[in-house]
Amino acid sequence: MFTKKTKIYLAGFLDGDGSIYVRIKPNSTYKYGFQIAPYVVFFQSQKEEIKFKKICNLIPFGHLRIRKDGIIEHIIGKNDEIIEFLKEIKPFLILKKEQANLMIKILEKKKRIKSKKDFEKVFLLIDSFRELNYSKKRKKHILTP
Amino acid sequence: MFTKKTKIYLAGFLDGDGSIYVRIKPNSTYKYGFQIAPYVVFFQSQKEEIKFKKICNLIPFGHLRIRKDGIIEHIIGKNDEIIEFLKEIKPFLILKKEQANLMIKILEKKKRIKSKKDFEKVFLLIDSFRELNYSKKRKKHILTP
Repeated sequence: MFTKKTKIYLAGFLDGDGSIYVRIKPNSTYKYGFQIAPYVVFFQSQKEEIKFKKICNLIPFGHLRIRKDGIIEHIIGKNDEIIEFLKEIKPFLILKKEQANLMIKILEKKKRIKSKKDFEKVFLLIDSFRELNYSKKRKKHILTP
Repeated sequence: MFTKKTKIYLAGFLDGDGSIYVRIKPNSTYKYGFQIAPYVVFFQSQKEEIKFKKICNLIPFGHLRIRKDGIIEHIIGKNDEIIEFLKEIKPFLILKKEQANLMIKILEKKKRIKSKKDFEKVFLLIDSFRELNYSKKRKKHILTP
């Protein structure tokens, strides 16, 4: 079902209204003190739930979540699924091609983290990511206090 | 340049972040007291201007406008261009297929308006359109005072 036509459509939809981003959450249970949480998300008003589910059914990864503010999200949050999905649709992205490339790079480097230095490199990459998304709510994280 | 691939991508982009709507503006210089102004619009932040223009260049109709709030719009506003554009991408729309069908119906009926009664029919169609878009800012227009 994940045909070329579907990939092109989803690239257009993601460029129009989707989001590719990584959250860094301070979390002391993780080895380096932070959890790296990557996301590819498609959004829509809950009023369009039936039609939006048609689109979600085209995506062979991820799950639906209905937010309290009436927005439905289709979230791909697993590292390998994000890599696979983005590699498939990347050739057809126009606006978010750089984000897709950077996300793939971050997740592939994340898999190979073996030291704090490796972790810091990934951390820096994630920071450059946040610049690509022009986040106004950008928070500064301090890795080593 | 308006290939099938482009049409599928633009259908996805329009479903994600575009808008199909008709404005009715009271205007005494028009025969029936109202101007019918149809629009197909693609939006993006001005920060993405260069990449967004790549998408706009794929659309063989319309023009760019930069709004004061930093949003760029690619607007298709001519009746015949809207009809032609929507007919081309309609097979690939998922979320906005009904809006596209209704817009085409309205514009084709609008061309053939010959009486106030014809005008009233188009007016009613436009009203049902506005319901499709779930407009919260919906204004009630009174055709015959």
